[in-house]
Amino acid sequence: MSQLAPSATVTPAATYPAIRHGASLLLAFRLENRPVLLIGGGVVASGRLFFLLESGAHVTIVAPLPLDPSIAYRLLSNPEQITHVPRDYQGRSDEIKVENFAMVLTAIDDVEMSREVCHMARERHVPVNVADVPPECDFYFGAQFRRGPLQVMISTQGMGPKIGAIIRDRLAEAIPDDIESAIEGVGELRKDLRKRAPGVGGELGKRRMEWMIKVCEAWPLEDMERFRDQDLRNRILDEGWEKGKVLSPEDVGAETIQERLARWGAGLGDTLRGASVGVVSGAALGAMATYLYLKHAR
Amino acid sequence: MSQLAPSATVTPAATYPAIRHGASLLLAFRLENRPVLLIGGGVVASGRLFFLLESGAHVTIVAPLPLDPSIAYRLLSNPEQITHVPRDYQGRSDEIKVENFAMVLTAIDDVEMSREVCHMARERHVPVNVADVPPECDFYFGAQFRRGPLQVMISTQGMGPKIGAIIRDRLAEAIPDDIESAIEGVGELRKDLRKRAPGVGGELGKRRMEWMIKVCEAWPLEDMERFRDQDLRNRILDEGWEKGKVLSPEDVGAETIQERLARWGAGLGDTLRGASVGVVSGAALGAMATYLYLKHAR
Repeated sequence: MSQLAPSATVTPAATYPAIRHGASLLLAFRLENRPVLLIGGGVVASGRLFFLLESGAHVTIVAPLPLDPSIAYRLLSNPEQITHVPRDYQGRSDEIKVENFAMVLTAIDDVEMSREVCHMARERHVPVNVADVPPECDFYFGAQFRRGPLQVMISTQGMGPKIGAIIRDRLAEAIPDDIESAIEGVGELRKDLRKRAPGVGGELGKRRMEWMIKVCEAWPLEDMERFRDQDLRNRILDEGWEKGKVLSPEDVGAETIQERLARWGAGLGDTLRGASVGVVSGAALGAMATYLYLKHAR
Repeated sequence: MSQLAPSATVTPAATYPAIRHGASLLLAFRLENRPVLLIGGGVVASGRLFFLLESGAHVTIVAPLPLDPSIAYRLLSNPEQITHVPRDYQGRSDEIKVENFAMVLTAIDDVEMSREVCHMARERHVPVNVADVPPECDFYFGAQFRRGPLQVMISTQGMGPKIGAIIRDRLAEAIPDDIESAIEGVGELRKDLRKRAPGVGGELGKRRMEWMIKVCEAWPLEDMERFRDQDLRNRILDEGWEKGKVLSPEDVGAETIQERLARWGAGLGDTLRGASVGVVSGAALGAMATYLYLKHAR
């Protein structure tokens, strides 16, 4: 539709990463107090329900009794978040209309009904997921883990939920133990910064964002938990932000000897663990190599 | 609304993880050929555009010239996926209506217009994201990385995009190099299995899912790339699935000595690297401890 102005400067291709199709758009959906329709009461529906409840959604479950025991349990322990309608969903003739929900999920064995629900939801632009039927899904769920404010999702484009779970477990191991404190600390610092420099977008928003990035670059992940201290935050904002500077952990003064030794202790433990894993694996490899060599030398 | 049947068995609370509110619902949205409205033509809009293009969406960008150079570049290199309307968006009076899109994103400095777009989208149940204004977002973007079919998103509940990026980089390092081949292999095996045992849900669907899980448990992540071999897949399905068994890597025959040595070489390298990191850090810690000790002993 548009003509680029003749003077438009276009940077050479090499600067921009190539588009590789076939991805999903990964999103963190906010559902606090929003209504979600969940059709089905079995073990798959139970998994969906867990994540919906954690997101604060209000879930209407349409499914005849008996329910999966974990759904029955949630119904008793989180009654304010769940409305249970104990019958099968009736499709187009049902008085529960898909357009009254922010999202529709089905997890039932009735293929025809699932398809009808999918059509109804799409006509009304309501995002829909039909468990186990990829073409009838506007979105997939992935393997995931959570550490307080940190949430990580692993999606394999439906290539295999189990391999997603295996990768999830590896990634969970790679996250520092005190990550929640680090994220909290940065969150507090950002909140204080916004109080000093309020407003949305524009030059100030840009300057605020750039300063936060520089702070995060100057501070190792393992040190960021220190931002939870109000005095430290004030100092970083007074002597840093206000003066157009970024203070490093060195600038604000090292930790006390006690704190430092505590951190060393942890670091030393990791190092020894890493080194001993190295030594043990090395020994095992050596033994296997010798065994194979002898076996084939015979 | 419902009464649980008196006989309903409810497993004790300890069995089920507690609900911790405050999470987002993490989703992988599928946008292949679906229309998305992107209002804004700056650097933030450019970031959004990249992920939308990778997801196969058709993007209508409403933004006056000049555009961010990378958007201008995409317009020239992916014209079939982008329609550019070179003017400001007009809100309710605009002939481009939010209800014609699967998703609406704004990335402009005009706070009033952003709010109007948010209201319009919510009235029509179209998911909306207003950059930098969390209360006007139905969903957030997170830090992310991609390795072929594998996509990983890191969300920090808006606590800080930069710390999300730092965690992203740590996680990316924890993923095996050949992960794409492993996921592809599992995907091929699943596809072949579905050909032999077609249909959705029910007993067969459950049996199929359980068998795939057992296969993934029996095979180390690093060996799964072998599933890309059609002969191996046939054997695993003939001698495994058809007979209600799961073949392990040992069952299908070890790799050749060459293959094994190649894998050992890689493993040995990692071990030595790990061990030397351990030794070097240990030495550094020792030196620092000695220094501190001498300093304070004075």
